[in-house]
Amino acid sequence: MASETDIQVRVRYAECDPMNVAHHSAYPVWLEIARTELLRQGGVAYRSLEAAGVFFVVARLSISFQKPAYYDDVLRVHVRTTQVSRVKVEHAYEVWRGDQRIATAATTLGCVDRDGRVQPIPEGVVR
Amino acid sequence: MASETDIQVRVRYAECDPMNVAHHSAYPVWLEIARTELLRQGGVAYRSLEAAGVFFVVARLSISFQKPAYYDDVLRVHVRTTQVSRVKVEHAYEVWRGDQRIATAATTLGCVDRDGRVQPIPEGVVR
Amino acid sequence: MASETDIQVRVRYAECDPMNVAHHSAYPVWLEIARTELLRQGGVAYRSLEAAGVFFVVARLSISFQKPAYYDDVLRVHVRTTQVSRVKVEHAYEVWRGDQRIATAATTLGCVDRDGRVQPIPEGVVR
Amino acid sequence: MASETDIQVRVRYAECDPMNVAHHSAYPVWLEIARTELLRQGGVAYRSLEAAGVFFVVARLSISFQKPAYYDDVLRVHVRTTQVSRVKVEHAYEVWRGDQRIATAATTLGCVDRDGRVQPIPEGVVR
Repeated sequence: MASETDIQVRVRYAECDPMNVAHHSAYPVWLEIARTELLRQGGVAYRSLEAAGVFFVVARLSISFQKPAYYDDVLRVHVRTTQVSRVKVEHAYEVWRGDQRIATAATTLGCVDRDGRVQPIPEGVVR
Repeated sequence: MASETDIQVRVRYAECDPMNVAHHSAYPVWLEIARTELLRQGGVAYRSLEAAGVFFVVARLSISFQKPAYYDDVLRVHVRTTQVSRVKVEHAYEVWRGDQRIATAATTLGCVDRDGRVQPIPEGVVR
Repeated sequence: MASETDIQVRVRYAECDPMNVAHHSAYPVWLEIARTELLRQGGVAYRSLEAAGVFFVVARLSISFQKPAYYDDVLRVHVRTTQVSRVKVEHAYEVWRGDQRIATAATTLGCVDRDGRVQPIPEGVVR
Repeated sequence: MASETDIQVRVRYAECDPMNVAHHSAYPVWLEIARTELLRQGGVAYRSLEAAGVFFVVARLSISFQKPAYYDDVLRVHVRTTQVSRVKVEHAYEVWRGDQRIATAATTLGCVDRDGRVQPIPEGVVR
């Protein structure tokens, strides 16, 4: 199963703020796209997971911003699975513009059912 | 039943773009807050409507932007119900900063069930 | 100069709402991406326009929503320039999922300078 | 100078996702509103700071999500300044719904000029 991948994202005008850079609240959205693609490359569409009653909720998020991202920049977001337990999965991320790393991040996701109760990650989803 | 009301909204930094004004995609969000409050003043929380299987979807939206809205501006959004039919409701909006009208808008909402099928608007909801 | 083009956009999880569909405030953002790409295909990056003191502001926006867009849908947004005057440009849009048209839209943009004053659209930008 | 404060924020429909809860990317926006109000209570409008060439950029952000926030919830965001150095300021946050704490967070902001270069925090701004 794929344990790392890259996505490209072009910074949207609507994501930028008066400082002329991507607002920091745009980054969690890009990270989410990256880990969703990682899942997809492992053969699982998150959409079908939810349809099957398997949800992942963000339990922890941390981001370190080193350089600004500008409007229209094409960024590369690298994601890799760093740890998997029975009910949690951790990812680490790097955001790059060309050969310049502009941010690093980490998330912890918990697996829950439709009612928000913790449940084991189904076999084959992230392992 | 209340057929018009006003809300106040302060322009968020994250809603502003590199032109230093509120991005136009922020306005539909403010309009939605306004018509939700109108509903609430009529005694109905949209949250409880959804719980009861009654959903309103936006079928048409139009906005005319006359003046920019700046970061930290306190705006007043006036909403009034302009037309109600068996399955649709129309609203008209004005966005004001002080005594200056900066935008006007209109929406048409359709009433649907959990599966997106058109259904009659329940008695007492917008009439 | 290119007067129409298509872009693809995948519906992001963060763009979807409790009705399990893309929130209507996401559409203006997609339309903006489409007309920016149209500009780019005509040889102009909007980023460089702004650097040169040429800004386009949305004066009018209207959207008609026919079908919902679901999370993870790959949509095609078609944009074409419908009218150009000395200081304004109008675009028409269609949003498609496969062979199903899910929305139509129109915008009017005004050309302004850094201080928001109307100015003529520079030669070669949209004509 | 005020070193802690509370704001109230009502969860917007557009901030909620298909899991029927506020998307995690909404939280950084609320935190920003809270620390802006803290600044205001200290007598400083961030808007006027930017006009004077003083910008604060987020260098680090971490959030721990304990409970979901639902649509229409009225949340209380508590912010306090935890550390101030010559060019950085740190804040800690708690997000509450009634007497239930649903999230904690921390940010580090750096003070920069219009061109993104680090500059000392002006006297009287956060101290």
